[in-house]
Amino acid sequence: MQRIAWSIGDINGIGPEIILKSFRRLSRSGSRPLVIGSYKALDYYNNLLGLNVALQEVHTPAEADSLSPELLPVLSTREPRSLPNPGTIDPESGSIALSAIERAVQLCIAGSCSAMVTAPIHKEAIAAAGSSHTGHTGYIAELCGSGNPTMLFHDPVIGLNVALATIHEPLSSVPGLIRTMDMEAFVTRLYHSLQQDFGITAPRIALLGLNPHASDGGVMGTEEQEILIPAIAKLSEHIDIQGPFAADGFFGAKRYTGFDVTVAMYHDQGLLPFKVLAFDTGVNVTIGLPIVRTSPDHGTSFDIAGQGKASPESFTCAARLADRIAMNRNSRRNHS
Amino acid sequence: MQRIAWSIGDINGIGPEIILKSFRRLSRSGSRPLVIGSYKALDYYNNLLGLNVALQEVHTPAEADSLSPELLPVLSTREPRSLPNPGTIDPESGSIALSAIERAVQLCIAGSCSAMVTAPIHKEAIAAAGSSHTGHTGYIAELCGSGNPTMLFHDPVIGLNVALATIHEPLSSVPGLIRTMDMEAFVTRLYHSLQQDFGITAPRIALLGLNPHASDGGVMGTEEQEILIPAIAKLSEHIDIQGPFAADGFFGAKRYTGFDVTVAMYHDQGLLPFKVLAFDTGVNVTIGLPIVRTSPDHGTSFDIAGQGKASPESFTCAARLADRIAMNRNSRRNHS
Repeated sequence: MQRIAWSIGDINGIGPEIILKSFRRLSRSGSRPLVIGSYKALDYYNNLLGLNVALQEVHTPAEADSLSPELLPVLSTREPRSLPNPGTIDPESGSIALSAIERAVQLCIAGSCSAMVTAPIHKEAIAAAGSSHTGHTGYIAELCGSGNPTMLFHDPVIGLNVALATIHEPLSSVPGLIRTMDMEAFVTRLYHSLQQDFGITAPRIALLGLNPHASDGGVMGTEEQEILIPAIAKLSEHIDIQGPFAADGFFGAKRYTGFDVTVAMYHDQGLLPFKVLAFDTGVNVTIGLPIVRTSPDHGTSFDIAGQGKASPESFTCAARLADRIAMNRNSRRNHS
Repeated sequence: MQRIAWSIGDINGIGPEIILKSFRRLSRSGSRPLVIGSYKALDYYNNLLGLNVALQEVHTPAEADSLSPELLPVLSTREPRSLPNPGTIDPESGSIALSAIERAVQLCIAGSCSAMVTAPIHKEAIAAAGSSHTGHTGYIAELCGSGNPTMLFHDPVIGLNVALATIHEPLSSVPGLIRTMDMEAFVTRLYHSLQQDFGITAPRIALLGLNPHASDGGVMGTEEQEILIPAIAKLSEHIDIQGPFAADGFFGAKRYTGFDVTVAMYHDQGLLPFKVLAFDTGVNVTIGLPIVRTSPDHGTSFDIAGQGKASPESFTCAARLADRIAMNRNSRRNHS
């Protein structure tokens, strides 16, 4: 049986609520979750919102295996001194979030868990707790000893996958990064991840241009001619790849439906269409790690924390995808 | 009665077809169109596609006024030596497209027409005809003696308006342009255009950030802190303006519904969500000209030219919007 670590995220955000609601919705026949973080915080929201989830504190993952699937096991890494304070930036809450991530990564690396799903953290809270990371992805990559993690956004409803060539960078840095990164290595890694994690035998890849209209033949910018077109030519010797496409027309004409993944050059180029198209079912997957990690594509939503209004849709989809990827990896290992 | 000039665009593209189809769909009770360009080309597609529009060649706009509204008047600026060749880049076709634009602008400036709607032109065809312009908007602005035209994209179905702070620029130039442009003057012009052209008394304006997550407080880029936030502070003394918003979340959460216009910092930031949301009803309006000009938000579609497959939806919406703006301007003139 697969055990999936769910890290609690910021206990003053919607993380505990969407974890509890997702557990209620997910089938008991698949893999089993193990919440990592704070029993006290989860119990608080369970009572506050009347969610009636049967929680069970455990001290090791193995202990969780013997429980009834109707019980949600919780492994506490650190308990808050007082009850959660929804919507508040708090160094203690940041610290709990960090400890949950660290433990979940350790359990995945050790093989005690098959994947991790991370509830949202708050950048300022983890900064107040002394972390220099601006987000989950970089921190998890560091804990795994991996460089170059890639963010892939997946929507199970419309079957859209969008990967980002650059992530949380100032827009002014993007053209330089596109020029200096190894685009061929990046696409090749992505290709293998789609094979390994999504079970796609020969992934079809679309690459967007950097400039408006993909530069219209070099009229607006030169990165297409100098970087992207040569990289595509080289890659297409081995990989089914097309582009560079004018990004607006590509999404407007729904051309993404003909590809298994669309590579955007920068954050907003990928996430603007993704968030419009995916509504609340979008999931973030980190590619290029030795472990499996997914997350919802939204933040802590401090404005509605503790009110029972949070939609568990994205977290539920993230949990389902983590299961699927872990199973795909496992089945490849067993066959190789 | 208002007379609206419809410039024919590239006669080897879908322009003549969408003009004919739009004429069939539009009510005869509103303003009247006057096609500018080539009678021969329009007649060719009318017969080829069996559209049965009653065409009438005229030599002056005044001559068109005496016609039955069931007849579509055509004022030829230049006739091709041979019949159109759908899907082909041709200097003669580029030259006809240019002459139609010039004549339409003249008629609008002279007051013989109240507005112009431009069918799509082909960049390479007008370049082959000797034009150094990369698109319609800059050329029309030059003919009008106007600097700084603004592209506004309008969708009548979902009521979305998106204005672009920078247009057809390499992405690497965008941050510098945002730093050096006069953002306050730009927004003020946009505000007055929404009042004058769209009849909105106190337009509500949303401004997007340049960087991902609108820089997350300066973590990813500095243009929000240094340029956009001070400009918004200054403008909000007189104008209802909010921002800078993280672009992906803004569109994902449909926050644009709370504003009359959303200002995007660059082409793809505005057009990626617009083209996904607007389907085929999107219209382009040029703001900041002495004349009224709208156009469909698509190109010449050489791949389907002459096949009867082109949707007239966007051109029809552009024609309706041109009528509406011309009426709004006229009514303001009469009341001032």
